[in-house]
Amino acid sequence: MNEPITSRQNAWFKRVQRAIREHAGEIVIEGPKQVADAFAAKWKPIAVVRSEGAGGTWLENDVVLSATLFEGLSDTKTSQGVLALFERPHHSADEILERRDSVAVALDGVQDPGNVGTIVRLAAAFDAAGVILLPGCADAYASKAIRASAGAALHVPIAASKHAELAAAGRPMLYADASGPTSQPPARDAVLIFGSEGSGVSKEIRRIAQPIAIAMSPRVESLNVAAAAAILLSRSYESRRR
Amino acid sequence: MNEPITSRQNAWFKRVQRAIREHAGEIVIEGPKQVADAFAAKWKPIAVVRSEGAGGTWLENDVVLSATLFEGLSDTKTSQGVLALFERPHHSADEILERRDSVAVALDGVQDPGNVGTIVRLAAAFDAAGVILLPGCADAYASKAIRASAGAALHVPIAASKHAELAAAGRPMLYADASGPTSQPPARDAVLIFGSEGSGVSKEIRRIAQPIAIAMSPRVESLNVAAAAAILLSRSYESRRR
Repeated sequence: MNEPITSRQNAWFKRVQRAIREHAGEIVIEGPKQVADAFAAKWKPIAVVRSEGAGGTWLENDVVLSATLFEGLSDTKTSQGVLALFERPHHSADEILERRDSVAVALDGVQDPGNVGTIVRLAAAFDAAGVILLPGCADAYASKAIRASAGAALHVPIAASKHAELAAAGRPMLYADASGPTSQPPARDAVLIFGSEGSGVSKEIRRIAQPIAIAMSPRVESLNVAAAAAILLSRSYESRRR
Repeated sequence: MNEPITSRQNAWFKRVQRAIREHAGEIVIEGPKQVADAFAAKWKPIAVVRSEGAGGTWLENDVVLSATLFEGLSDTKTSQGVLALFERPHHSADEILERRDSVAVALDGVQDPGNVGTIVRLAAAFDAAGVILLPGCADAYASKAIRASAGAALHVPIAASKHAELAAAGRPMLYADASGPTSQPPARDAVLIFGSEGSGVSKEIRRIAQPIAIAMSPRVESLNVAAAAAILLSRSYESRRR
C-alpha cells in the first residue's frame, strides 16, 4: 500500500477543492453510503478519495490522503473519511417536461442550498418529473443541497434552464403565491414554480404563469418555500393517485 | 451621550453572552424589526443592546457597545446593530391543550433549531393552538430557531413538557409515521406529534399515540420533519375551515 498523500499541492487534493468551490463539471459526494448510492445510481466516478484511517477499497486507484489533508476537504463526521468525485449528471428541462403523467417543479431564485435540496427530496417523495433550476438558484449538487436531499439528488432529474425556455415549452404553469386562488394543484402535465425566500417569483414568471395560494391564517404573511412545495406537491400526488 | 462600552468584562456584555449560550430565563432577539415586534407582542424587555453605529433609542437606558464588542455577540448582518434581552415567555402545555377548536403540535426529540423554528412558523400559519416541546428538542427560543420561525416564535404559545404529562391530558394523539394509515388528520381537539429527524418518535409516544402517514412514493423512506408538519397541519387547517 502506498503512503498517504500529505501535500496540499497534490493534484487530486486541488481538484476536489476546486470541485467543491466551483460547482462546475465535477460533483463531490461525501460519506460511504452516499458514494455507494451514487455508484448504484450509475453516476460516473472520477475518483474515490479516502482518509488514511478509513477502511475499504472502492476503485482500483483510490486516492488516500493523510487525515489532516482529508479534514481540509471535508468534515469527517459527514464523510466518515470517504468522498468521491463524480461527473455532473446532465439532464435537460425538455427531458423533464416530456414526462406528462406527473408535474415538474421549477425553482426561481431559490438561493439557499438547503431549501433546494429539501425540494429535490420532496420531488422524489411525490414522484415529480424533475426539478428545473431557473436563474438565481443554488446548485442542487452543492454539498449542503445533496445532504438536504437525503440522497434524492442522485435519482431526481435536475436541469438548469431559463425563463424564456420554460415559457417556450407551452405547458400550464402555476407559481405559489398568496395572491392566487386556493385551488387544488394540477395532478399532471403542469409546472409548479416556487420563488425566492424573500421576494417570491420574478416578474418574468408572473408574466408567464398563474398564481396558486395555500389556505392559511391571514395573520401570517408567507410560508417557507420548502413548506409550500411540500403542501402543493403532496396534494398533486394525492390527486394523481385517485 | 455616554461613551460606548469596550470591555469584555462589562456586566451587560457577559449577560447577553450567557443568555445566548445557556437558553435559560433570558432570550436574545436580534434585529430592529424583530425587537420592535417583540415589544408589540408584549414580551418583557430587560435591556436593548446597540452597536455604537446603530441609530435610534429604544429604552431609557439602552446599552451601547463598541462595534467590535457588539460583533462578538451577534453578526451585524442579522442584527443590524440592535439586539434585546427579554424575559423568556412562559406557557404551559395545559394552556395549549385547553384550546379545543384547533390542534396542538408536539415535537419529540426534534434536535435541529431550524426545524423547530420552521414548525413554529407552520403552527402560526395553520393556526395551531401551540407547540409543545417534549424531551430532546432544540430550544424554540435559540437564535437560529427564532430566525427560522420568521417572527412566529413571538406569538405562538410554546411550552416544554414530558411524555407522561402529555399522556395524562387524555387527548387524541397522532404521530407522523410511515407505518400509519394515510388518513385525513383531525381538524381539532387533538395533538399532532412529530419525531426526530433520524429515528422518528420515541417508544413512549408509540405507546400512547396512533400513527398517521402521508401518501408518498414507496421509493422514498421518509420526509423532512418540517415537510411532514407542513402537509398535516395544512390539511388539518383546511378541514377546520370547512
